[in-house]
Amino acid sequence: MINPKNNSTNLESIPLVSCAKSFDEAVESAEMHGNDMMEKMERLFPICRSLTGAGIRETFNIIGETVPLRRHKIATGEKVYDWTVPKEWNIKDAYIKNSKGEKIVDFNKTNLHVVGYSTPIRTKLSLADLRPHLHTLPNVPEAVPYITSYYKERWGFCLSQNQLDSLEEDTYEVVIKSTLEDGFLELCDARIGPEDSPEIVVATYCCHPSIANNELSGPVLTTKLYEILSGINDLRFSYRFLFMPETIGPIAYMSMFGEELKSQVHAGYVVSCVGDDGPYTYKKSRRGNSAADISALHMLRHLPTENSEILIHDFFPDAGGDERQYNSPGFNLPIGSLLRSNAGTYREYHTSLDNLDFVSARGMAGSLSAYLRIFQTLEMNRKLLNIKPNGEPQLGKYGLYPGPGVHPRFEDEMRYILYLLCYADGENDLMEIADKVERPIWALTGAIGKLADAKLMELAD
Amino acid sequence: MINPKNNSTNLESIPLVSCAKSFDEAVESAEMHGNDMMEKMERLFPICRSLTGAGIRETFNIIGETVPLRRHKIATGEKVYDWTVPKEWNIKDAYIKNSKGEKIVDFNKTNLHVVGYSTPIRTKLSLADLRPHLHTLPNVPEAVPYITSYYKERWGFCLSQNQLDSLEEDTYEVVIKSTLEDGFLELCDARIGPEDSPEIVVATYCCHPSIANNELSGPVLTTKLYEILSGINDLRFSYRFLFMPETIGPIAYMSMFGEELKSQVHAGYVVSCVGDDGPYTYKKSRRGNSAADISALHMLRHLPTENSEILIHDFFPDAGGDERQYNSPGFNLPIGSLLRSNAGTYREYHTSLDNLDFVSARGMAGSLSAYLRIFQTLEMNRKLLNIKPNGEPQLGKYGLYPGPGVHPRFEDEMRYILYLLCYADGENDLMEIADKVERPIWALTGAIGKLADAKLMELAD
Amino acid sequence: MINPKNNSTNLESIPLVSCAKSFDEAVESAEMHGNDMMEKMERLFPICRSLTGAGIRETFNIIGETVPLRRHKIATGEKVYDWTVPKEWNIKDAYIKNSKGEKIVDFNKTNLHVVGYSTPIRTKLSLADLRPHLHTLPNVPEAVPYITSYYKERWGFCLSQNQLDSLEEDTYEVVIKSTLEDGFLELCDARIGPEDSPEIVVATYCCHPSIANNELSGPVLTTKLYEILSGINDLRFSYRFLFMPETIGPIAYMSMFGEELKSQVHAGYVVSCVGDDGPYTYKKSRRGNSAADISALHMLRHLPTENSEILIHDFFPDAGGDERQYNSPGFNLPIGSLLRSNAGTYREYHTSLDNLDFVSARGMAGSLSAYLRIFQTLEMNRKLLNIKPNGEPQLGKYGLYPGPGVHPRFEDEMRYILYLLCYADGENDLMEIADKVERPIWALTGAIGKLADAKLMELAD
Repeated sequence: MINPKNNSTNLESIPLVSCAKSFDEAVESAEMHGNDMMEKMERLFPICRSLTGAGIRETFNIIGETVPLRRHKIATGEKVYDWTVPKEWNIKDAYIKNSKGEKIVDFNKTNLHVVGYSTPIRTKLSLADLRPHLHTLPNVPEAVPYITSYYKERWGFCLSQNQLDSLEEDTYEVVIKSTLEDGFLELCDARIGPEDSPEIVVATYCCHPSIANNELSGPVLTTKLYEILSGINDLRFSYRFLFMPETIGPIAYMSMFGEELKSQVHAGYVVSCVGDDGPYTYKKSRRGNSAADISALHMLRHLPTENSEILIHDFFPDAGGDERQYNSPGFNLPIGSLLRSNAGTYREYHTSLDNLDFVSARGMAGSLSAYLRIFQTLEMNRKLLNIKPNGEPQLGKYGLYPGPGVHPRFEDEMRYILYLLCYADGENDLMEIADKVERPIWALTGAIGKLADAKLMELAD
Repeated sequence: MINPKNNSTNLESIPLVSCAKSFDEAVESAEMHGNDMMEKMERLFPICRSLTGAGIRETFNIIGETVPLRRHKIATGEKVYDWTVPKEWNIKDAYIKNSKGEKIVDFNKTNLHVVGYSTPIRTKLSLADLRPHLHTLPNVPEAVPYITSYYKERWGFCLSQNQLDSLEEDTYEVVIKSTLEDGFLELCDARIGPEDSPEIVVATYCCHPSIANNELSGPVLTTKLYEILSGINDLRFSYRFLFMPETIGPIAYMSMFGEELKSQVHAGYVVSCVGDDGPYTYKKSRRGNSAADISALHMLRHLPTENSEILIHDFFPDAGGDERQYNSPGFNLPIGSLLRSNAGTYREYHTSLDNLDFVSARGMAGSLSAYLRIFQTLEMNRKLLNIKPNGEPQLGKYGLYPGPGVHPRFEDEMRYILYLLCYADGENDLMEIADKVERPIWALTGAIGKLADAKLMELAD
Repeated sequence: MINPKNNSTNLESIPLVSCAKSFDEAVESAEMHGNDMMEKMERLFPICRSLTGAGIRETFNIIGETVPLRRHKIATGEKVYDWTVPKEWNIKDAYIKNSKGEKIVDFNKTNLHVVGYSTPIRTKLSLADLRPHLHTLPNVPEAVPYITSYYKERWGFCLSQNQLDSLEEDTYEVVIKSTLEDGFLELCDARIGPEDSPEIVVATYCCHPSIANNELSGPVLTTKLYEILSGINDLRFSYRFLFMPETIGPIAYMSMFGEELKSQVHAGYVVSCVGDDGPYTYKKSRRGNSAADISALHMLRHLPTENSEILIHDFFPDAGGDERQYNSPGFNLPIGSLLRSNAGTYREYHTSLDNLDFVSARGMAGSLSAYLRIFQTLEMNRKLLNIKPNGEPQLGKYGLYPGPGVHPRFEDEMRYILYLLCYADGENDLMEIADKVERPIWALTGAIGKLADAKLMELAD
């Protein structure tokens, strides 16, 4: 016992440990943020968002109360790669009245009733002439579907198949009080963390009108992640938060910042469909083994067992959200997506049924916790170096060896200490070591702290 | 809608598409070649072939009616690597008569009755003295086996075990009217396709007497492949067809053209045992992952489901045909073999039961179709480049985007278009992209054509 | 038949074959060494060994009767990496007497009764005061556990839980006649085989008192391996045998010879727990795919089927023996361990139940045979070159081709010949070729000899 130690260790002796502890605390309190996120969603839900216009602008204003957004504007008609920024769309009212003067379809009941980007119209039509402008979802006959037509000018209404079936021959008055005028596409970003550090991208899209899981859960969770990550100690990555309309948003953003992203992004995720209680679903980045992917998969392997069903998908370009743009071959960014019920796979998707009842505080808090664990994994996944690598150190000297016994029953932390000493050779990273012990990387924090305190271990990267 | 397109696309805008379409047509009409191939086999069946002599020469003459063969001759006694070209063997008649003058074994009934390369004999023998010269196959007692003795001079007869068991003590007259004289070994080849292109080898052997599946099905299918491939548009590979006796044939051929083959062969196949209805069997080249192997396996993964049983073998040197020579370590050519019932594994193999009843027009046509799909796979497996790789292109501009809907139900071709845009980065080849969509490479032809027409895609190799 | 051969082949034409044959003979006679090893274990069993002192010294003397040991001494107080050589411990007697004068715990019954490295003591204590010095194993209540305290000075006794439970309130006389004085740590090695050759390490530890499987079986088997390997013909590796106390032994040895080991060791094994009849267990080296690992796994794949249960473990640093030191990241030597019942996993481990009844001549002989096959695998695993690689050689010329037949029924050796000719290209090693034929490497000896005699094959490394 050359250098006895008491039990109190200074776990903050290296920033890795300080950061890891800070994440542990955030995860422990994740559940209490569920209701808060639900309230934010209730506030945002009624707004009629689209690619452009007052609805998405107001949404950015509300997010901006929490996140200091940088707001980038691109004018109608500007070219962004293969695309052209469309006109700005605004809408005041829309309805279909029957000959009795009853509003049988009313934008004020749900903004899903109007096809997004509908041109203005005021006319009277027979049911036969109206019908090509009415969209339904026959497989989900009670739902109003969500339809848009951004790049082809048309007008239309969405209603349930049940309602369509009940319409009688009549002369209908059709009114859409919308405008399509030159204006701006808006894209927002925000950053935290050390300057000049590699970046983690947290991207979400905000252009859907009253739909809860896909997509409001995304911007609301991303806002909460901004709030929490701002309070984490000793981050080594910087975090770039992206709020923008889908598809043309990231394309326009990459036309401005694409080279920066290519050189700086270490990992990233598209946050959407994170509010329901479905199984966790991970869609890999196109690279398939990026830091984003291995970190998310590591986290998922160590989710509490109640979430036993986990879905892992290789990248696919024929469905999904903005990961399709970030992963296009010209950028090929290491950006995946962690979701709950996957876009396009659940019955309520893109309909009036994906409403505030479909999401829950519990679902939101679970997703929050999962994303925090991913970021913790990314932050912790460094290379350590055993400073006394020739044979095992004499652990008793450092107070790190248990008392005598037939087969000293090593507590977990003792096992982690031995694994860390064995594999921390400057080559293996901490995730690889955690995988060898078959535990999450964040289980190693205590052992790392003790080894660092005993001057047996140091950072190697 | 900047650049609207009508639906008619010029699929021939790139040679890849033209070639692929041409193969599709050939495959569609494969079935109608079955009877034609059966007729050719019936004509060739009775000829008494061997390594050398009149039988194989006549066989080459018949093949030569369709394929413009280059015929190479090597004289008896010449050295080819470790081997020496044997004498030329010819036979006019052979029989065994009992003391009543009855021909109990008669070469004119089936040429399998005589051991190949039997020396001439005319003598009378007791049953006991005759017996060491009589060969049977006890496990298949009704069959006359096929036996040769090319490199050790002996004589003998083959008969069924049943017949042997019925022979009585007697004095037998034994006659073999054969000659073994200096002459020539003959090897034939033919080529189609562009000069100086990498080559696909289509090799078969032709030295077995009256045996249908192993081996006549091989030269007959190879002849048909020559005929069809000659009519395919825009081939980028050249094809070398090889017709020769087994074992010493390819060894002698490689002693003449081995260096040429080593530098030019991209892939190749030994065609044999392709006439029955057994499951498709693929024997890999010694390299194990050559272009020949991955193309054949790709094709087999996408065979119509009725052919669900598929056998895949790593290369083995202790059974099989001429792939043993092409894959010998001095050459190690990327040559595998696609067969139906594998040589040596079926009861009728190398006996009188492997006759014209054992093969069928349907079996031959199926194998023809399978080989055509392999060659199509090889021809199509190129690298493409998405010309607008930053984000997805605005497909609506090119008429490539379906109308509005909740979740636009992408038809197959739309999916292929998105996969091609995503993965055609000049690194992935088309087979890898097809594997990601889980479809055969030839399913992508239409999508490739449309993208090429829209100037969104070009060849990258 | 240009160059006919008779059947007698000179299998010793290459040293590889001579060495392989010599191993075959050793394996064939392995069983007869079982009793001999049991006798050696009986002689060594009663000795009270520890890290230092008379017991281990006497053990080295007995091993030294067979193995010409080089004995290295390191003085108390010397530093070896992070460790310091402890004092030398010797003990003459130890007991606990009750007030009736009865020895209720007596070192002379089993030396396990005293905690290893106990400080001297002579005192009288109440049961309450004695109790903290009494160690038992509650889960195995009839066993006396094995306990040491090398680096923290204390004294203690070990007894069964059953006995502890029967102790009555009393005044006990406690005597330990031990000494802890400056002295020496001793480490022993021995070598055979060609000078300057890469080395195989055969390491074992010898510091446990009366425990049979873990560990006496180790030094006894290692001694026998020395004896047998000394008689093997044409070894190409040299063998370094290590006998030393556990943990500090290899650490001290590596502080002296670590650089030599790093540059010379090709493979190695820690020999321990090899005397019982449990399933074979292989613990890989930290590298996971070292020559030690692939050779042991090859051997295990070809163990006779009665040993069907085989346990394979990736390296783990939190249990086991000296492989933990050899594989520490500063050395990372390619040293694994083949055991029977794995240390720490059987009920008798580190107790008085791991006695001479727990091991057997059969168990020892089985382990001997397994280790010999591993060394044979290492010795044989060379690269050969087919001298006539262009096509198959005409095997008939060399008397290597069987007579005529429908499908010449190749005996095993004929198959090996064809595989060797095909794959002996100077790239594949013999283990890879053996794996392709799905046979152990030592099955190829005859075929290699015949090919070498026919001048068709030569060594390529």
